[in-house]
Amino acid sequence: MSLESSWVGSANSAETDFPLNNLPYGVFSVAGSAPRCGVAIGDLILDAAKAEAAGLLTLAGGPLLQSGAWNPVMSAGPTVWGALRARLAALLAEGAAERARLDPMLVAQSDATLHMPFTVSEYTDFYASRNHAFNVGTMFRGAENALPPNWLSIPIGYNGRASSVVVSGTDVVRPWGQLKDPDDSLPRFDKCARFDLELEIGAIVGTPSKGMVSVAEADEMIFGYVLLNDWSARDIQAWEYHPLGPFQAKATATTISPWIVTRAALEPFRTATPERERPLLPYLGEPGPMLYDIDLRVGLTPEGGKETVISETNYKTMYYSAAQQLCHHTTSGCSMRTGDLLGSGTISGTGKDSRGSLLELSWGGREPITLADGKTRSFLEDGDTLTLYGAANGDGYRIGFGACAGKVLPATDLPDWARA
Amino acid sequence: MSLESSWVGSANSAETDFPLNNLPYGVFSVAGSAPRCGVAIGDLILDAAKAEAAGLLTLAGGPLLQSGAWNPVMSAGPTVWGALRARLAALLAEGAAERARLDPMLVAQSDATLHMPFTVSEYTDFYASRNHAFNVGTMFRGAENALPPNWLSIPIGYNGRASSVVVSGTDVVRPWGQLKDPDDSLPRFDKCARFDLELEIGAIVGTPSKGMVSVAEADEMIFGYVLLNDWSARDIQAWEYHPLGPFQAKATATTISPWIVTRAALEPFRTATPERERPLLPYLGEPGPMLYDIDLRVGLTPEGGKETVISETNYKTMYYSAAQQLCHHTTSGCSMRTGDLLGSGTISGTGKDSRGSLLELSWGGREPITLADGKTRSFLEDGDTLTLYGAANGDGYRIGFGACAGKVLPATDLPDWARA
Repeated sequence: MSLESSWVGSANSAETDFPLNNLPYGVFSVAGSAPRCGVAIGDLILDAAKAEAAGLLTLAGGPLLQSGAWNPVMSAGPTVWGALRARLAALLAEGAAERARLDPMLVAQSDATLHMPFTVSEYTDFYASRNHAFNVGTMFRGAENALPPNWLSIPIGYNGRASSVVVSGTDVVRPWGQLKDPDDSLPRFDKCARFDLELEIGAIVGTPSKGMVSVAEADEMIFGYVLLNDWSARDIQAWEYHPLGPFQAKATATTISPWIVTRAALEPFRTATPERERPLLPYLGEPGPMLYDIDLRVGLTPEGGKETVISETNYKTMYYSAAQQLCHHTTSGCSMRTGDLLGSGTISGTGKDSRGSLLELSWGGREPITLADGKTRSFLEDGDTLTLYGAANGDGYRIGFGACAGKVLPATDLPDWARA
Repeated sequence: MSLESSWVGSANSAETDFPLNNLPYGVFSVAGSAPRCGVAIGDLILDAAKAEAAGLLTLAGGPLLQSGAWNPVMSAGPTVWGALRARLAALLAEGAAERARLDPMLVAQSDATLHMPFTVSEYTDFYASRNHAFNVGTMFRGAENALPPNWLSIPIGYNGRASSVVVSGTDVVRPWGQLKDPDDSLPRFDKCARFDLELEIGAIVGTPSKGMVSVAEADEMIFGYVLLNDWSARDIQAWEYHPLGPFQAKATATTISPWIVTRAALEPFRTATPERERPLLPYLGEPGPMLYDIDLRVGLTPEGGKETVISETNYKTMYYSAAQQLCHHTTSGCSMRTGDLLGSGTISGTGKDSRGSLLELSWGGREPITLADGKTRSFLEDGDTLTLYGAANGDGYRIGFGACAGKVLPATDLPDWARA
C-alpha cells in the first residue's frame, strides 16, 4: 500500500494523520451548531451528514448520518461499512467528478469542536499486555509471582463505567476517594495523590451479538479503534480492589481520541499476536493476524510548560487481540451491543521508556521520571496535560488517530456533608 | 398505615402483593401488542399509557408514558413521581369519580406478558451483607480472615453487565466458561458445574447526577426497588477473578422482578442499618433510616416437581443501604444516569436457612441441601426454576414485589470452532 491521492491537498502529505487511506469517523460542530457526523481528510472535515442529505452518500437502510453519532452506521453492519468507505474514497479521490459539490461541505479542523464520535453502550477494560501485567505484578508480588496463574489462559477483563468515557479535550478533575496509607490502620477520605494515566487502544463493537462468538466472528463485529486513556487513581485502587476489582479508582474518566479509525483502514497493518507461552484453549485460537502495528507515544505537558515524550511503544506487543477479548467476553452468553467499548489494557513495551503508565515509569513512585524542563514526576500533578498519539506507519503515509488529550484539574472542594 | 381501599376488589385483600398502598410500575403486553406502561392493582393492571392518552393522567413535561419503558418518568424527578403516585391513588381509590372511564383500561395480570419495566443504563453489583461476606470469606480464607480489610469501611461494589439484565420469566441458559479444578494445573473450557443464585434487591436510579452526592441526595435519586437474582457461575468465578474481579461468571444473566416498587410505597417500612462495627468515614453517614424491612424468600422447583423454600431472610440485615452505595459510587466523580441499577449484594441472614446463595446453603457444595421430594442440591441443576419472593408486611396489607423467577436450561452445544 502507498499514499492514495485526494483532491484535498493537505491529505496528500506524508505528515498528515488523515490521508485518503484513513477516512476516520468523528462528530463535530462549528460555531455552536448541533454535533454532526464528519470524516477527517487532511486538515479538513467532510460534513458527512450534509453529503448524505444532498444525496451524495446513499446507505442501505439510511439515512444513517443524521443523528450526531455513528451508532446507526455501526449497527448497520460490515456491508454498509464497506459501501460507505468505498463511496467516500471515490468522492474524495483525485479527479472525482463530485468535487465541486463537495467543496462547500468541507470544514477546517481548526474551526471545529470535536465531540464523542459514538454513544458508548458499555465499557470493558482488559489487562492484556504481558509487560504491563509483569511490571505491576513484580511491584506488588515480586518477579517470581508477577503474572496471576490465569493470565496466560484468560484475556482478563473487568467491566468499567460507560458514563465516565469522554472525548479528547475534556478536562479531568482529580478525584476524591477512600485511601489508606500502608502504615495506617484505617482509611481516610482524601484527594487522590497517585493519579495516573493508562495508555490503551479501544476497540468499538459495531454489530451486536447474542451467545458465544468465535474470534473470527468477533473480529468482524469490530467497527474500529480509538486511542484510550484510562485515568487511574492508584491509591484508591490499592485500598478498594480486594476482592472484587477496581471500581471508583477507574470511574473518574476514560478519555478517547475523537476519530474512529476503521478496521478497514488498519487492514494493511495486521500482525500476529506474540508466540504463546502456554497453549491457549481452542476457542481463543486466532484464524489469522488480529493485532495491528500501531506506533504509540505519550506526551506530558506541565502547566505552561513544554511537552516531554515519556513513553513510546507499539500495540503489536499485546498478548491478546481485541478479537480474542471480545470472543472471551461472550463465552458466558453475554450479549454484546452496538457501541460497546473494549479497552486493550495498558500497553507497555519491554524497555523502561516504553511503559504505558506512570506507575510503571516511576516504578511505584520510587524512581521519579525527569521532564524536559528538569521537573520530576512520580504521578500526575494538577495542570498536567496528558496526550496520547498513535499511528500505523505505511510507505510514505500514515493512518493516524489524532491526539487523545486531557488536562488534570485540581480536586473540587470537599462538600460540607463529607467533613468530619 | 393500614390497607387503603380501592374500587378494584382484588386490591383489598391482605393477601395481594398489590394493594392501593403499593401501585408498582411495570411494562406489559396483551396478545402480542406493543409493550405498554402499566400499574399493578390487585390482580389487574391499569393501562397507564391509555389513561395518559385519555387525559386521565397529566404529567409535567408529558406525555411520559408512551415509550414502553418507565425511563421518561424516572428522569422527570421526584416532583413528578409524587404527583403521579397521588393521582393514581386518587383514581383507583374507593369511590373515585373516574371509575367508569378507567374500568375498560384494566387488564387481567393472567392475560398479560410482562417485560423489562425500564431500560437499564449500567448495572453495578455490591457486596453489602455482613453475613454473606463473612460466610464466603470463611469458606475461602477461614473465619479469622473472613472479612476483607476494607469491608467495614467501603460498600464494596463492581461494575456488572447491563446487557445481561432480564425480566422474571426469562429462561437462563447454563454457561460455558474457563474452569480449573483445584487439582488441575491447567484450565479447560467446560459447562459451568457450580451454577448458583444470589438473592438481592436492586435499587433503580431515577434522577441523574454529576459529581459527588451525599447519602441524603442519593436516597432522593432512587426511583424504586426490584428483587434481583444475580446468577453466578462459581467455578468460572474462582478461576477468573484474580486480580480484577468477577467478569464472565456474572455475565450470563441477572433477573429482576417485573414491578418497580416505588420508594414512596416502601416509606412506612424504613429501618436503620445495623450498628457500625467500625466508625464510617463522615461522607457515608446516614441522615435517617435508609434500609427497609422487606421479608424475602427463595423457592427452588425441580423440573416437574414442587417448590421447596430454601431460604428466608430480610433486607434489613444489610450492613450498607442502597443510598450509601450510590453515594460511594459517585465519590470519584462518576456520573450516574437514569436507569442505572444497583444490586444490593447477596442478602444472607445469620441462620443457616437464611443464606442467600447455594454456595452458602450447601457450604461450598460440602453439605448439600435436601428438597421436599428428597432430592438434594449443592448447586442448580438443569430444569430447576428459581423464584425470589419479597414483601414489606404492614398492618393487614403487604407491599409485594411479585415473583422474580427463572428456569435453568441446559448449556448449548459447543460450537465446532471451540472444540480441540
